[in-house]
Amino acid sequence: MENRKIGAALLGLGTVGLGTYKVLKAQKDEMPYKTGAELELRKILVRNKAKAAAKIDEPELITDCFDEIIQDEKIEIVIELIGGIEPARTYIEAALRAGKHVVTANKDLIASDHGRLMDLAREKQCDLMFEAAVAGAIPVIAPLKHSLAANHLSEVMGIVNGTTNFILTKMSQEGMEFAEALALATELGYAEADPTADVEGLDAARKVAIMASIAFNSRVSFEDVASEGITKITANDIRYAKEMGCCIKLISMAHSDGTAIEAYVAPMLIPQDHPLASVNDSYNAVFVRGDAVDDAMFLGRGAGELPTASAVAGDVFDVARNIVHGCNGRISCTCFKHLPMMAMEDVHSKYFLRVEVEDRIGVLAEMANVFAELKVSVEQIIQKQKKGDSTEIVVITDKVREGDFKEAVKRISEKNATREIRSTIRVYTV
Amino acid sequence: MENRKIGAALLGLGTVGLGTYKVLKAQKDEMPYKTGAELELRKILVRNKAKAAAKIDEPELITDCFDEIIQDEKIEIVIELIGGIEPARTYIEAALRAGKHVVTANKDLIASDHGRLMDLAREKQCDLMFEAAVAGAIPVIAPLKHSLAANHLSEVMGIVNGTTNFILTKMSQEGMEFAEALALATELGYAEADPTADVEGLDAARKVAIMASIAFNSRVSFEDVASEGITKITANDIRYAKEMGCCIKLISMAHSDGTAIEAYVAPMLIPQDHPLASVNDSYNAVFVRGDAVDDAMFLGRGAGELPTASAVAGDVFDVARNIVHGCNGRISCTCFKHLPMMAMEDVHSKYFLRVEVEDRIGVLAEMANVFAELKVSVEQIIQKQKKGDSTEIVVITDKVREGDFKEAVKRISEKNATREIRSTIRVYTV
Repeated sequence: MENRKIGAALLGLGTVGLGTYKVLKAQKDEMPYKTGAELELRKILVRNKAKAAAKIDEPELITDCFDEIIQDEKIEIVIELIGGIEPARTYIEAALRAGKHVVTANKDLIASDHGRLMDLAREKQCDLMFEAAVAGAIPVIAPLKHSLAANHLSEVMGIVNGTTNFILTKMSQEGMEFAEALALATELGYAEADPTADVEGLDAARKVAIMASIAFNSRVSFEDVASEGITKITANDIRYAKEMGCCIKLISMAHSDGTAIEAYVAPMLIPQDHPLASVNDSYNAVFVRGDAVDDAMFLGRGAGELPTASAVAGDVFDVARNIVHGCNGRISCTCFKHLPMMAMEDVHSKYFLRVEVEDRIGVLAEMANVFAELKVSVEQIIQKQKKGDSTEIVVITDKVREGDFKEAVKRISEKNATREIRSTIRVYTV
Repeated sequence: MENRKIGAALLGLGTVGLGTYKVLKAQKDEMPYKTGAELELRKILVRNKAKAAAKIDEPELITDCFDEIIQDEKIEIVIELIGGIEPARTYIEAALRAGKHVVTANKDLIASDHGRLMDLAREKQCDLMFEAAVAGAIPVIAPLKHSLAANHLSEVMGIVNGTTNFILTKMSQEGMEFAEALALATELGYAEADPTADVEGLDAARKVAIMASIAFNSRVSFEDVASEGITKITANDIRYAKEMGCCIKLISMAHSDGTAIEAYVAPMLIPQDHPLASVNDSYNAVFVRGDAVDDAMFLGRGAGELPTASAVAGDVFDVARNIVHGCNGRISCTCFKHLPMMAMEDVHSKYFLRVEVEDRIGVLAEMANVFAELKVSVEQIIQKQKKGDSTEIVVITDKVREGDFKEAVKRISEKNATREIRSTIRVYTV
């Protein structure tokens, strides 16, 4: 069989763009055997042509004119690696409208426009693939859509932001405070100059939106996901967590009982014997629970030039196979349900609470009463070390409604004896 | 779009067969949305009709005549869950020859006849899928063929036998000896009445043959895989491993530098901070290394009724999608290379050796000389506790050629001062 020749264009030649260029080049000889097709990279779209030309062997591929790509009929696959909402969205839509298949690593766009773009792809019978948008190199989207498709999944959660995982690992292993660990992450290139999207959990929220949509067959977008970052976590919190046999991780959580979806990002205490507890540094991991598969976990590099390119090129290979076999759009949008999002106040979690109070008789009882009034069931309430006339009280609740717990914390904060609510952190439970 | 109706037959109604029946039933309403097709289970082949009829709601599906299945043109997918070589092979070949797609969980057959069956499937443009043949519920084959396809993989290794992992976990956590832990595994149903295939590493060897074939794009069969079991591992070995910051796991190892393949099963010392070290009890995990993906690991249930059925049904869904889109055979055999197997004596490993010797001056030097003669580089050689006129010497080598190491052990065993070679165990190194 003569190999089918498939033209492709790369949009963007940043870290992931250059990585994808390298990986596709490294696979040049084997791709025909693996897919039945040969890939011909015909154009690379960049903003700064001179800068880009210096990076690669084939500077003649470089262009700053998107129209050249749209008008080239031999280009069947557009690989979007610019990132961000615009102009990526305009380019992807134009490519799909022109009947070109799209592979992207763009989590911002997929998390907010997943539905609209998938609908457009379906209408045009085009593939739109985005494995690299969640958890970098780790196969997550494909296993959820294929190998695990015959499950009713109840939970997809994990560590999908390498920057915050690096920071929390340093805080845990070396007793650093948040600011110090963030400074180190910035120095080592794990954190961006403006780390907001990472440390406030926004990046993780985008990924949980995408994972939840696929896992529960119902569209969840970035706006549906509540997010809480790690900026308030202290070295002290981590020490307390260790005492309780736990570590603290920024968890992307999506849970569904089949009637509604809860999706949020929050720091959580994770028991040391849970597989996620040993996922350290910039590694990512996604944990899945389903009615047939039971528990499974996927672990690997969540970012980086070649790891992310591995996922992008894997998708390109799959699109190429579909082209060869004439079955593009073989697996398109799988969001056939319309499940409501659960309001965060109705989400049930177990909580860890640390409060500094005046050290006098009756304070512990006052606090216990507040919980009782709101029917917030408490597992433990412990009075810890004294400092002057202050003392610290640590409370571990059972699995309780978030709205009730927050009201309890509010009432406690209003008590005369309360000096400071030091931390409220969720505790992961099955 | 009207749903395509696809007929299927189940061969076997044992643990996995019944699990698959249940999972497909549980997915009845959702499968059309997920695949565009409705599955109609038309026949279930069993040996004992009465026994089988008692297990399910639709006893009218049960037959003991395979010909009924072959002759039913509406049956497009045959799901083989009998296991073992015959009659499974005859049935699968007959199904493929009749143009029916096959999904199987049969590791024995795939490990020995992978090539021939894949060739037949390709000739008939049929799908032949076997995700459940390796590592139960864990997606391994699909990620290797799809998401990670754009990699040159150099290593696929892991824990793919739950029985031995359960035994080693008990030996490690509770200090049991092998026989005691095996008895417990038998009692709890984790080990079969005849545990040979598990404890001698044969089951794991079958799985490593399958994984290596896919990962390195070159056929590896069961006969190519050297296997060493865990029957000689003692509680003492595990204690020594712990002292060295390691645990002992039965590792299925496949490694390739692109010019040859080494594939074997052997107990190994694994550093406690390696992700595989925390894979305990009956969990399985597969660790992959590639030039782009770097390191990734997949963890989950390696066996069990519903977990294995999750993988089988995932394959059935994929075949159904291919039928709907007219692209069966879209991904068939990917073994386009013909790499030789490396002879075990040429495989390089790091080793741990324990020898009981006569306690006299010069014995340590004698042993060191043997290693020097054979150019076996030694990292550590330690004299351990004395007992009467005996003492124990522990040697850790560098990464050395197996043939040289074995010759050194042979020569040491022939020395007058040597009383017993207590253990030789590989040590995992990158």
